[in-house]
Amino acid sequence: MNAPFSFTLLSQSGQARRGRITTAHGTIETPIFMPVGTVGSVKAIRPDLLKTELQAQIILGNTFHLYLRPGHQTVQKLGGLQKFMNWPGPILTDSGGFQVFSLAKLRKMSEDGVTFQSPIDGSTHHLTPEFSTQIQHALNATITMAFDECTPYPCTEAQAAESMRLSMRWAQRSRSAFIQRAGYAQFGIQQGSLFPSLRKESTEKLLDLDFEGYAIGGLAVGEPSEQLHEAIPMAANLLPQNKPRYLMGVGYPSDLIKAVLAGVDMFDCVLPTRNARNGTIFTCEGVIKIKNAEHKEADVKLDPQCTCHTCQNYSRAYLHHLHKEDEILAHILLTHHNLHFYLTLMQTLRNAIENQTIQTVAHQLLQTYR
Amino acid sequence: MNAPFSFTLLSQSGQARRGRITTAHGTIETPIFMPVGTVGSVKAIRPDLLKTELQAQIILGNTFHLYLRPGHQTVQKLGGLQKFMNWPGPILTDSGGFQVFSLAKLRKMSEDGVTFQSPIDGSTHHLTPEFSTQIQHALNATITMAFDECTPYPCTEAQAAESMRLSMRWAQRSRSAFIQRAGYAQFGIQQGSLFPSLRKESTEKLLDLDFEGYAIGGLAVGEPSEQLHEAIPMAANLLPQNKPRYLMGVGYPSDLIKAVLAGVDMFDCVLPTRNARNGTIFTCEGVIKIKNAEHKEADVKLDPQCTCHTCQNYSRAYLHHLHKEDEILAHILLTHHNLHFYLTLMQTLRNAIENQTIQTVAHQLLQTYR
Repeated sequence: MNAPFSFTLLSQSGQARRGRITTAHGTIETPIFMPVGTVGSVKAIRPDLLKTELQAQIILGNTFHLYLRPGHQTVQKLGGLQKFMNWPGPILTDSGGFQVFSLAKLRKMSEDGVTFQSPIDGSTHHLTPEFSTQIQHALNATITMAFDECTPYPCTEAQAAESMRLSMRWAQRSRSAFIQRAGYAQFGIQQGSLFPSLRKESTEKLLDLDFEGYAIGGLAVGEPSEQLHEAIPMAANLLPQNKPRYLMGVGYPSDLIKAVLAGVDMFDCVLPTRNARNGTIFTCEGVIKIKNAEHKEADVKLDPQCTCHTCQNYSRAYLHHLHKEDEILAHILLTHHNLHFYLTLMQTLRNAIENQTIQTVAHQLLQTYR
Repeated sequence: MNAPFSFTLLSQSGQARRGRITTAHGTIETPIFMPVGTVGSVKAIRPDLLKTELQAQIILGNTFHLYLRPGHQTVQKLGGLQKFMNWPGPILTDSGGFQVFSLAKLRKMSEDGVTFQSPIDGSTHHLTPEFSTQIQHALNATITMAFDECTPYPCTEAQAAESMRLSMRWAQRSRSAFIQRAGYAQFGIQQGSLFPSLRKESTEKLLDLDFEGYAIGGLAVGEPSEQLHEAIPMAANLLPQNKPRYLMGVGYPSDLIKAVLAGVDMFDCVLPTRNARNGTIFTCEGVIKIKNAEHKEADVKLDPQCTCHTCQNYSRAYLHHLHKEDEILAHILLTHHNLHFYLTLMQTLRNAIENQTIQTVAHQLLQTYR
């Protein structure tokens, strides 16, 4: 029998929180960044090295992708996503909603759910709060997300209210479909665009459903950076202290630092992995483009302060060469570094919260990181 | 000061040889397979894991590719190919000749060398025996190959003779351009197509130049498999006992087994790495195509007898899924397995020669391997 899913607030510094989540698949020290393993693989990284070399604690899987291929029933037959992909740790799956709205064709919305065509083979599918929850159960998600509509930006307050209220009705249906098991959790997703009163209404409706954690949805969907940075503390402050808070799909290192200051505990984003593949590298001196000619004969580390496998063993010159040649090893080594950067940043922030130096540390980091 | 380059014949069983090559960058137990690291990377494999997990002992670099990008002078400035790519072991570089004939455009042959256009940017280059040798020195090749013309197949005896004699004049110029350093070597390349008298003449000319090792060139260039398998012992038997023998660009597991029986010590081929990327997998039960639908829910190892990282941790079902999704991890895991297969096959053959069981072991292996 697994221990129950729980969140312990270990220390606080201002709004910033240092916590620990206990799950059926291991514990997670927060604040934490979750590498994105879209279709059952964090791109270009071996799952064992993700753990042993990068110290990732939890990864994210995309329900939309895994439902379409290989199919949730296949994953279930093969023992769940952890066994399938050789990642024994916690996995959070999104609900599929965001991808239906951003990737699928010929969507048709109704109160019941969304009908869409597969971008792979054009076949028709119908996703509902109940079905999304069932799929996530079949995948064996440690943390299941409620099915919601990601409110587009910009939108009027009336549109945002209508969209949020639909998501809240869907949250109730998702919650009803969720099967409680020790060490597993379901998170509700707060919506309401940039409107404080709608975020408040959304939070109240979610709290009635008593989720094990709460996410902030519908941000970083195109709004200007200033509005994002105003919205994060507004949205986070509405959430209860005793549950994990997850800001979905955000973002740049500076976004993460600001959100940690605002009391957010969990993050995911494709930026470190996707940017690695296009040669955009996060370093302690800011972002570098490895394809630039200045790196052709640069016999120096990617990041002078970094201790990752890539920085310990390879020069910018070699990585520049591999990237230009589109060698698979470029993706392997650059993804490794970018993920190390994000995961180490979170470790730095965790330490700073414990040491009550988060304000100073965050201020210093924000001088260089975008 | 490095120990001199040397080859020790440890034991023999029939024509099969168990040997040890000592070089400036480490020792090599033969018979050995050399993974191909075309442009400074064995595709999809981290160099450190190539050593620690796959026990590769020597890799091959392509002079043609490295000359064009990043350029031999860049590699030299950065400390040579070993340091550049974080592979501290022995490296053999080919002469660039084969690639000029197979990849470059608008070739123009002369007694002096070959003028060709770069397939990358159309720029004009002139490669000679002297320049090829200089490039390989700049790359810091442990084993440098003489520059030769790969005689096409089919060809008349007169054409084969003319081509071989040009290669032998080039071998003499390559030898003159080679700078002896302790622990480094240069190999001459026997040519002569399928004609025994020409192979004999070629060998005699090479022996006059006293190379540190000898390669068999111009095979596996389109001739039927039976002719290849007749030519290998014919060609190998002409070579001296006290020097390493390298069969270039060959081949399938069955080719390697037969060539080891014929007394060949060294091999390279892109098959295990290239085939991994297109999903063709070598197993103890023969070749499988991982994309085939039969593997979709197969919760079994790629190869039931294999102890590699991939087979220890992932099912055919997962690898089938990754391959269909064209995930980078498919290339990583499948390349790892195929290289492990080739390198372990050579280990098996080395053990069998030591134990005087090579005839039986080879016979058994040839029942399943193509």
